[in-house]
Amino acid sequence: MKYVYELKMKVRDYECDLQGIVNNANYQHYIEHTRHEFLLKAGISFADMHQRGIDAVVARVKISFKTPLKSGDEFVSKLRVTKDRVKYVFYQDIFRLPDEKLVIKSQVDTVCLINGELGVCAELEELLEPFFDKE
Amino acid sequence: MKYVYELKMKVRDYECDLQGIVNNANYQHYIEHTRHEFLLKAGISFADMHQRGIDAVVARVKISFKTPLKSGDEFVSKLRVTKDRVKYVFYQDIFRLPDEKLVIKSQVDTVCLINGELGVCAELEELLEPFFDKE
Amino acid sequence: MKYVYELKMKVRDYECDLQGIVNNANYQHYIEHTRHEFLLKAGISFADMHQRGIDAVVARVKISFKTPLKSGDEFVSKLRVTKDRVKYVFYQDIFRLPDEKLVIKSQVDTVCLINGELGVCAELEELLEPFFDKE
Amino acid sequence: MKYVYELKMKVRDYECDLQGIVNNANYQHYIEHTRHEFLLKAGISFADMHQRGIDAVVARVKISFKTPLKSGDEFVSKLRVTKDRVKYVFYQDIFRLPDEKLVIKSQVDTVCLINGELGVCAELEELLEPFFDKE
Repeated sequence: MKYVYELKMKVRDYECDLQGIVNNANYQHYIEHTRHEFLLKAGISFADMHQRGIDAVVARVKISFKTPLKSGDEFVSKLRVTKDRVKYVFYQDIFRLPDEKLVIKSQVDTVCLINGELGVCAELEELLEPFFDKE
Repeated sequence: MKYVYELKMKVRDYECDLQGIVNNANYQHYIEHTRHEFLLKAGISFADMHQRGIDAVVARVKISFKTPLKSGDEFVSKLRVTKDRVKYVFYQDIFRLPDEKLVIKSQVDTVCLINGELGVCAELEELLEPFFDKE
Repeated sequence: MKYVYELKMKVRDYECDLQGIVNNANYQHYIEHTRHEFLLKAGISFADMHQRGIDAVVARVKISFKTPLKSGDEFVSKLRVTKDRVKYVFYQDIFRLPDEKLVIKSQVDTVCLINGELGVCAELEELLEPFFDKE
Repeated sequence: MKYVYELKMKVRDYECDLQGIVNNANYQHYIEHTRHEFLLKAGISFADMHQRGIDAVVARVKISFKTPLKSGDEFVSKLRVTKDRVKYVFYQDIFRLPDEKLVIKSQVDTVCLINGELGVCAELEELLEPFFDKE
């Protein structure tokens, strides 16, 4: 299994909380941004889909926090994706740079809502297909 | 001139940054939430208006930061509003509780966009009218 | 098993994203704020502990998203806590008001760092003890 | 007068609110991040200074919102700085890319607190000196 997308980012000071480390909730922001950038690369705009009544929504998220990021840290956010019936499962890991130390491991299960109903979005499926992890 | 709306809130730890005080941007969140709750009280839902193509947007904001809020602090966010031609001008001040120490003073100039064009929203005007500060 | 703490909150519009629903990351903010308020009630200040070199940190979080919250929604955030060796495990569920519809179910595993090292904080343990869920 | 620092960024979807545009408070995040990156380039770490009891704090901010940023937009955040007695005044403007349309104009007045007292930080002064706008 290998990553199909990587995005480099840098901690912004407002993301750090009074413990002096990146607040946990911001890792969800990091991995959401990474997914959306990956989708854009695959030809899928999250905002455009929403305009057309199609919403990719997160059904479940699991995050293990390994090493906290701090002010000034750079990091790379990596992504793999698999298909499990109606779910698209994203495995998203973040590594600190330059030492590649693991920051978080996460799994994000997403489903597709078409006008609010659970469904299969053929267009999304076709665009994502080349990226699926088939082990 | 007097305040026409007040909302009590409490600092949430994730709003504090590595200086151990509420990050500046969060005061804009506090005053936005206060305006929207005030509008709701006046019978105006920001989200419903958006659905109908009417957006109240902020044209300009000025904030003076006087005393920083910290973890555990409670505060009250107070609001006055005046009309200045097509602008609604909100004066929004925050005071720490229980000592009523001034936290921020702010002025928020808003205008109304109707389907993206600057305009006067009669409905909004009528609902806000009883609250205008006429000195 | 029963909840030992409950906190009522209301969606703030800035917490909603372009899908018109509360952005996923904000649920982590809601449950963090709920934990910290619960700890305060138990006599534990997250900010004070940090000053003394003791940090309760989240090792793992799992969130299942059931019903999205929208602009104007009120909700109650409920919490149970158990002890599992060095971990404090918080079960935190959010229900929409007034219909009590389940919004999210979550589990948050936390550990205690004393000057950066994994440890058992006797003070924290004593204060939390009365609240542990012993089934 | 000319800009002494520029930083390119891209809108992240979680920064957009239910109006489908970047929430106003996030522009304060953008300009804070730009200032801190500028300070780093000048040899000043905001986080390190805080550790040594020196805090650069914002006394006043004025922002004029001209064109809203949307999902997918890239932009450049530009900065000038002047000295006005104990204040460092940052002029920070954001332009959408690639059309260079003005997004916001802002002025941020900052002061230096040394162990909580208003003061002049000689070290900061020396490092910033080469960048001051002297018209």
